[in-house]
Amino acid sequence: MTDAVYDDTNIFAKILRGELPCQKVYEDDETMVIMDIMPRADGHCLVLPKKPMRNIFDADDASLAAVSAITAKMARIVKDAFQADGVTIQQFNEPAGGQVVFHLHVHVMPRMNGVALRPHTGDMETPENLSENADKIRAKLNF
Amino acid sequence: MTDAVYDDTNIFAKILRGELPCQKVYEDDETMVIMDIMPRADGHCLVLPKKPMRNIFDADDASLAAVSAITAKMARIVKDAFQADGVTIQQFNEPAGGQVVFHLHVHVMPRMNGVALRPHTGDMETPENLSENADKIRAKLNF
Repeated sequence: MTDAVYDDTNIFAKILRGELPCQKVYEDDETMVIMDIMPRADGHCLVLPKKPMRNIFDADDASLAAVSAITAKMARIVKDAFQADGVTIQQFNEPAGGQVVFHLHVHVMPRMNGVALRPHTGDMETPENLSENADKIRAKLNF
Repeated sequence: MTDAVYDDTNIFAKILRGELPCQKVYEDDETMVIMDIMPRADGHCLVLPKKPMRNIFDADDASLAAVSAITAKMARIVKDAFQADGVTIQQFNEPAGGQVVFHLHVHVMPRMNGVALRPHTGDMETPENLSENADKIRAKLNF
C-alpha cells in the first residue's frame, strides 16, 4: 500500500475553506455537496466529507457513514429534481482508479433511460446551466 | 420517484440464502462480499448488505454505513492483494443507472496504472481464475 499524504492545497480543500467559489447545494456538520463543474449528466453533484481525507484508503468509518447517508439523500433528490430514471454512483481512488482531485468525493449522476454519460472532455459547464441545475436541487432540499 | 418493490428471487437474494453458489470472500452480521463472476478487473468483488434492499433509493442509513465501512475495508484489501495502484468504486441504481441485479451492491475494482476496466462483455470468468483471485483476497483477510 502506498501511504500518500493529504495535500490541503487541492481544489476541494480550498472550496471547503471558502477560498474558491462553487455551486453548493447542501451542507451539514460533516459533509458538503457541490455541483461538478464538468458534469457527465445534468445534475451531476459531488458529496465531500469536510474532514481532510485523500480517498477511501485513509477514510474513517464515521466519515464514510456520513458521506453514504448524504449520497443516498442526494441520489433520491436528483432523481426527483431531474425526473431521472436511475442514478449512477462512482468514487475513484488514486490516479489508476480515476481520481483527479485528492480529497475524497462521491459522484452522484442522474441517469435517463438510453442516455450514456457524457465523456470526460474536460469541458466546463456554463455558469448559467450549472446555476440552473443547482437551483433545481436546492428547491427540493429547501437549501 | 418510482417505488419499485424488492423481488427476493434476484440472484443475490438466492446467494445470500445459500440457494446459489458463489465465491464468498468475507461475511459479517450485516454484509457479505463475493467475487463478481464477470469481473472487469482481477479481484473485482461486490459488497452486499444482507438485508433486502433494491438499491440506494430504498436503503436505510445503517445498512449504508455498514456497506461503506466494508467497501473501504475491501478497497484496502484488494489494493494489497493485487498490488493495485488504485481502486474504482461503482454503485448502480435502476436500469438507467446501470443496475442489472436488483439487490443493492457496491463494485470494488482494483486498478493498475494505464489499464482500462475490461468491457462488460457478459463473459464469465473461469472458475479456476475466480477461485484463485478469491483466495488472494481471503489470504489477506484470514477468511
